[in-house]
Amino acid sequence: MSLAPERASRLPGTAVPRRCQVAKMKAAVFAEVGRIVLEDKPVPDIGPLDALIRITTTTICGTDVHILKGEYPVARGLTIGHEPVGIIEKLGSAVSGFREGQRVIAGAITPSGHSAACLCGCSSQDGAGTRHGFKPMGGWRFGNTIDGAQAEYLRVPDAMTNLAPVPDGLSDEQVLMCPDIMSTGFSGAERGEVRIGDTVAVFAQGPIGLCATAGAKLMGATRIIAVESIPARQEMARRLGADEVVDFTEGDPAEQILELTGGRGVDVAIEALGRQETFEGALRVLRPGGTLSSLGVYSGDLRIPLGAFAAGLGDHKIVTTLCPGGKERMRRLMEVVAAERVDLRPLVTHRFTLDDIEAAYDLFAHQRDGVLKVAIRN
Amino acid sequence: MSLAPERASRLPGTAVPRRCQVAKMKAAVFAEVGRIVLEDKPVPDIGPLDALIRITTTTICGTDVHILKGEYPVARGLTIGHEPVGIIEKLGSAVSGFREGQRVIAGAITPSGHSAACLCGCSSQDGAGTRHGFKPMGGWRFGNTIDGAQAEYLRVPDAMTNLAPVPDGLSDEQVLMCPDIMSTGFSGAERGEVRIGDTVAVFAQGPIGLCATAGAKLMGATRIIAVESIPARQEMARRLGADEVVDFTEGDPAEQILELTGGRGVDVAIEALGRQETFEGALRVLRPGGTLSSLGVYSGDLRIPLGAFAAGLGDHKIVTTLCPGGKERMRRLMEVVAAERVDLRPLVTHRFTLDDIEAAYDLFAHQRDGVLKVAIRN
Amino acid sequence: MSLAPERASRLPGTAVPRRCQVAKMKAAVFAEVGRIVLEDKPVPDIGPLDALIRITTTTICGTDVHILKGEYPVARGLTIGHEPVGIIEKLGSAVSGFREGQRVIAGAITPSGHSAACLCGCSSQDGAGTRHGFKPMGGWRFGNTIDGAQAEYLRVPDAMTNLAPVPDGLSDEQVLMCPDIMSTGFSGAERGEVRIGDTVAVFAQGPIGLCATAGAKLMGATRIIAVESIPARQEMARRLGADEVVDFTEGDPAEQILELTGGRGVDVAIEALGRQETFEGALRVLRPGGTLSSLGVYSGDLRIPLGAFAAGLGDHKIVTTLCPGGKERMRRLMEVVAAERVDLRPLVTHRFTLDDIEAAYDLFAHQRDGVLKVAIRN
Amino acid sequence: MSLAPERASRLPGTAVPRRCQVAKMKAAVFAEVGRIVLEDKPVPDIGPLDALIRITTTTICGTDVHILKGEYPVARGLTIGHEPVGIIEKLGSAVSGFREGQRVIAGAITPSGHSAACLCGCSSQDGAGTRHGFKPMGGWRFGNTIDGAQAEYLRVPDAMTNLAPVPDGLSDEQVLMCPDIMSTGFSGAERGEVRIGDTVAVFAQGPIGLCATAGAKLMGATRIIAVESIPARQEMARRLGADEVVDFTEGDPAEQILELTGGRGVDVAIEALGRQETFEGALRVLRPGGTLSSLGVYSGDLRIPLGAFAAGLGDHKIVTTLCPGGKERMRRLMEVVAAERVDLRPLVTHRFTLDDIEAAYDLFAHQRDGVLKVAIRN
Repeated sequence: MSLAPERASRLPGTAVPRRCQVAKMKAAVFAEVGRIVLEDKPVPDIGPLDALIRITTTTICGTDVHILKGEYPVARGLTIGHEPVGIIEKLGSAVSGFREGQRVIAGAITPSGHSAACLCGCSSQDGAGTRHGFKPMGGWRFGNTIDGAQAEYLRVPDAMTNLAPVPDGLSDEQVLMCPDIMSTGFSGAERGEVRIGDTVAVFAQGPIGLCATAGAKLMGATRIIAVESIPARQEMARRLGADEVVDFTEGDPAEQILELTGGRGVDVAIEALGRQETFEGALRVLRPGGTLSSLGVYSGDLRIPLGAFAAGLGDHKIVTTLCPGGKERMRRLMEVVAAERVDLRPLVTHRFTLDDIEAAYDLFAHQRDGVLKVAIRN
Repeated sequence: MSLAPERASRLPGTAVPRRCQVAKMKAAVFAEVGRIVLEDKPVPDIGPLDALIRITTTTICGTDVHILKGEYPVARGLTIGHEPVGIIEKLGSAVSGFREGQRVIAGAITPSGHSAACLCGCSSQDGAGTRHGFKPMGGWRFGNTIDGAQAEYLRVPDAMTNLAPVPDGLSDEQVLMCPDIMSTGFSGAERGEVRIGDTVAVFAQGPIGLCATAGAKLMGATRIIAVESIPARQEMARRLGADEVVDFTEGDPAEQILELTGGRGVDVAIEALGRQETFEGALRVLRPGGTLSSLGVYSGDLRIPLGAFAAGLGDHKIVTTLCPGGKERMRRLMEVVAAERVDLRPLVTHRFTLDDIEAAYDLFAHQRDGVLKVAIRN
Repeated sequence: MSLAPERASRLPGTAVPRRCQVAKMKAAVFAEVGRIVLEDKPVPDIGPLDALIRITTTTICGTDVHILKGEYPVARGLTIGHEPVGIIEKLGSAVSGFREGQRVIAGAITPSGHSAACLCGCSSQDGAGTRHGFKPMGGWRFGNTIDGAQAEYLRVPDAMTNLAPVPDGLSDEQVLMCPDIMSTGFSGAERGEVRIGDTVAVFAQGPIGLCATAGAKLMGATRIIAVESIPARQEMARRLGADEVVDFTEGDPAEQILELTGGRGVDVAIEALGRQETFEGALRVLRPGGTLSSLGVYSGDLRIPLGAFAAGLGDHKIVTTLCPGGKERMRRLMEVVAAERVDLRPLVTHRFTLDDIEAAYDLFAHQRDGVLKVAIRN
Repeated sequence: MSLAPERASRLPGTAVPRRCQVAKMKAAVFAEVGRIVLEDKPVPDIGPLDALIRITTTTICGTDVHILKGEYPVARGLTIGHEPVGIIEKLGSAVSGFREGQRVIAGAITPSGHSAACLCGCSSQDGAGTRHGFKPMGGWRFGNTIDGAQAEYLRVPDAMTNLAPVPDGLSDEQVLMCPDIMSTGFSGAERGEVRIGDTVAVFAQGPIGLCATAGAKLMGATRIIAVESIPARQEMARRLGADEVVDFTEGDPAEQILELTGGRGVDVAIEALGRQETFEGALRVLRPGGTLSSLGVYSGDLRIPLGAFAAGLGDHKIVTTLCPGGKERMRRLMEVVAAERVDLRPLVTHRFTLDDIEAAYDLFAHQRDGVLKVAIRN
């Protein structure tokens, strides 16, 4: 083959040569704790149910930084990343309903569609192939148990369940948040069962928390109180729906929220950081009968204070949610974007090419220069 | 007045003389930590929305023992008890829809019907009269914030919301569990959203846990695993619906349950004791996406182990429930009894008269002689 | 008493003299079919659970026109109207939690709070005092079974359940739609369980339909297709959230909607007129598994076409809703207004004083001059 | 080929010879209106996602009789039947998680797992391959759009979503009702959201209605009123959970039910016949706020009487359900059987071999000899 994979990747609709064993691509791989590096790897082979996607844009997630730091272990050599926007390069032999050359996204979570978890309504806990069909976080495969999206090409498993065509007229950056943070953030409001007229607190306004704020507004919350201290994030929170912002550097945020609500507390509190303080704060501001919707990834045991929990007698709910995936979820989120109900483009504060992804990691991991999300383009 | 109140109380339908200020009754009151004693108190006055009930049968709850021991503080002199079966003696001037002489029960929780909490669907957290209409555990008034049911007479507030006529043909003991443990225990299954075909674990088979077991069966669970070590309670658990019983003295109950389910875990785990071990065990046996339904009254902070919680990414739910009350709830529970779907009479292991209630407390507080529940008759 | 009731009604906080039997007020009463007239009536007496409200603003509903035309029968001499904004003039002896002089609204539906229907979560079907506690439409009392709001004074039954204080800063007209059309219209979206990303059709854009459109948007629908032919209503529909408007004079609206959605149909179809054509159209545009949320008041039997119903095998739902009431509902709706999530003031197209209410009926009943809603001020 | 397909079908685990084009089997095919006949057909080929099942037991459904009579059109030559119990003969190349020789069932409805309908929670309306992913009744493939189960072999599409291993110890007849009537009947109670303490009416006690009765009991209904006139079915209804049986030949069943309930009506009414009379009766007996859960297959337009529908203001719900399918549903239903919560074996009143299936159709279509369900054995 005379066509180098690098060039192939830039020609829409050009199939990767099948028999050429040497077809290579660039990919950001976990080398060791502290090092995610750009390497050459073979373009993935695909099975009958898979699709091969040529990535056009992707991004870096806070979870990837946990991986970088060794806080979440993955295999050495694994390609990182779970937020793909791209073009179908090749479809598995048993895949129907799609065509090569289509612009698509896939969720960070790629359910099989046929596990017991999927058929039970909790597809993120997909355990296809396991004895019972459930596996904690089993739906999270990209950049976790299989190669991920920070590469030129990506193998999407169970393609018929996971490929979601991008509506005409939407740019890559407009849909870049759908695979993970928009799906996760919105689910904080959805699983919290936010209702018209609710007061909602959202603890932390990083990318996920900002999307939770937007989701709460989209579902009819009428008073949204965001907790955040960084001015740029406070500003973004207001832009996406926060009615008030509480700065935790100016006093206990739970107390501030209780004061703002005249002691009533909130109907739904969304935790979007993954820390004891925010979890506990979210519980403390709940009215009796309220719901704590937890989105954060915790790194240690949590403590439930007796009083905030009303000794177990407060009719409280605590719900946790891993990012919902699957093509129908992605379709709905892209509808939100297309209908201009929410515009998350301002979250993309910095742009890099895949060639410069190591610099992107450096910026993002250190939260320099007011970064919220980066776009990585091929 | 020639008619002594003691005698009046034994004549069905005989109204307590209204203007006689000296009408007295016997009542079990909290004297000080360690002492609940039978005393003479005035028969309660009633307001326009109240009813006066002549108690025919009541019982003692584990919560009353907490009060006795000073673990849950109440005012000195308060009449204890929240599980009334009796006869309407007098109705407030604004009460309609009932008649004196009717046999009734009232729930342990007596919602007002008009608080924001009631109108929001969480009436146990009734905060009528408070600024926002919510108050943690606010619906629990009997033997907590107002005089309770271990007496000859009981004032029932918001009578139109709370009085539930006993269907003909049901004995006092048949409906004695409805006000509290049946309502609480069943709610463990209901709030856990047990579905047909579910596997359910119930941690602890005291009176509440036994009712949770019965409730899970009533909702269609097909495999119910009860955790209990006392043989009589194990036997009762099987009788009420447990398919298997795990003895925690024979090894970690969570591990036993995981082994019984081949590692899958359970769809719903009900905690019915109020201890860190049982809370944690319930979390550990949950399948991803499962629900921990907590009924216990905790006495300290709780710890959520990171692993069992899947770091917050397991799509788990934790729900807590205070006993649902109100006349419609009571009607439904008495329907269950009348239809012979569940028979809780075997839970009454000992019987006393009100005169002997101090002995009843002694037996029950020390859990002597295999006691499950006592009946206190007037 | 020297103070004429007409004057008393204009002095905020002036209590109506209690013992003066001759205190009179003006009220719009149903005289006979075709005639609703302004008459003098006694200011209502109140019972212990009631409140007396001095009406400051009210409005006329399409249902009142049905009454006027004799299509919905009420007693002669009954005061009409069920949408009150006013000031507490007097509180019943057993009412607590409110104070005279407070600005309040009450819902069109005034649940008792203590009926089985209330305690079951369907308080609009309140049957307090009936044998079982359910009565079809039993919660609708104002201007139906008791005197209504088109008067100088209104007796509000079960005041503790129904009085909702108006937040400071909101004008009468800002909250005038809360008692009925906002509550009803929103409930079309709520009972339809609109979700983020849904496509929703709303059949007819009268006041209720317009509020259904606003409600669907508030809950996260991303494509709202309104059916309407009157240009001013089409314009209002777009202003309140419709993405597209279908004109039924330009062809079968169901076919137009199916074409717009590429044959897919909608997730939720809201019927807001009460006619066979709109009911049937709503059914025909539903995707399999979709929900028809019906708000209209029908005047004859309905026909379900076999095909649109998939012979009963389409996993369809049809839900009907009578306007939700009660103070907590009102509070939430006023929160929506206060938070500026929805502004329904433009619906008030005409203003009258109570003295001129007969002219207001004439305009509204004949739908002259592009009238949407009228404000009737005292 | 020396091995006749008839013999192959009797040897467990014997693979059908792959390359032998002449491998034949017997199958009951729709020949023309009025004639379903046993014919020789090729053993089905399977694709990568399919499984080939050797049928050991199947049955005839009322729907098959509709097909026989030409009331529901299918292609000539199509193999009929959608209730398979059998043994995995061969697995498609992309199928994992199962092994040849396993005893399995598959639901009457075989969702793909990857359609929008599946990912939306209404997999029976599967529209895999269609533009939007929804198709009315699209999940019903066996004996409708592809060859069915009344044959020696059956191709199961999307095998990973649909094959459900039969627990050890359960006979074919014990699980024979799971694929259709148990799943459908139970769903009548499930979609009706039967709660503990509900009163439920079930109109008609054919196989589906009987399963609806069993389902309502399993979910905690405390008063189940069955409508049926045939003594054997009345008896079976009582056995499966009916507390009372109303005979429609002795008077209007709706009036009888209203009388039995003292005028209150029922919380949930399940329609299990598919006729105007039963649909209308179910609506008439509903309390305000109640749910009509419709299971019948209708053959004409339906009429909703204005009064029973409270003019659209009764907070009623009407829900329809097509039999839920998929392996997880089947697993749960088999759990119900294994746990002995419900025993549907008595529904099998007659047994035939596949060779005699024409006689079975004759008996079943004419409802002779008290037939409820037949078992067809290979």
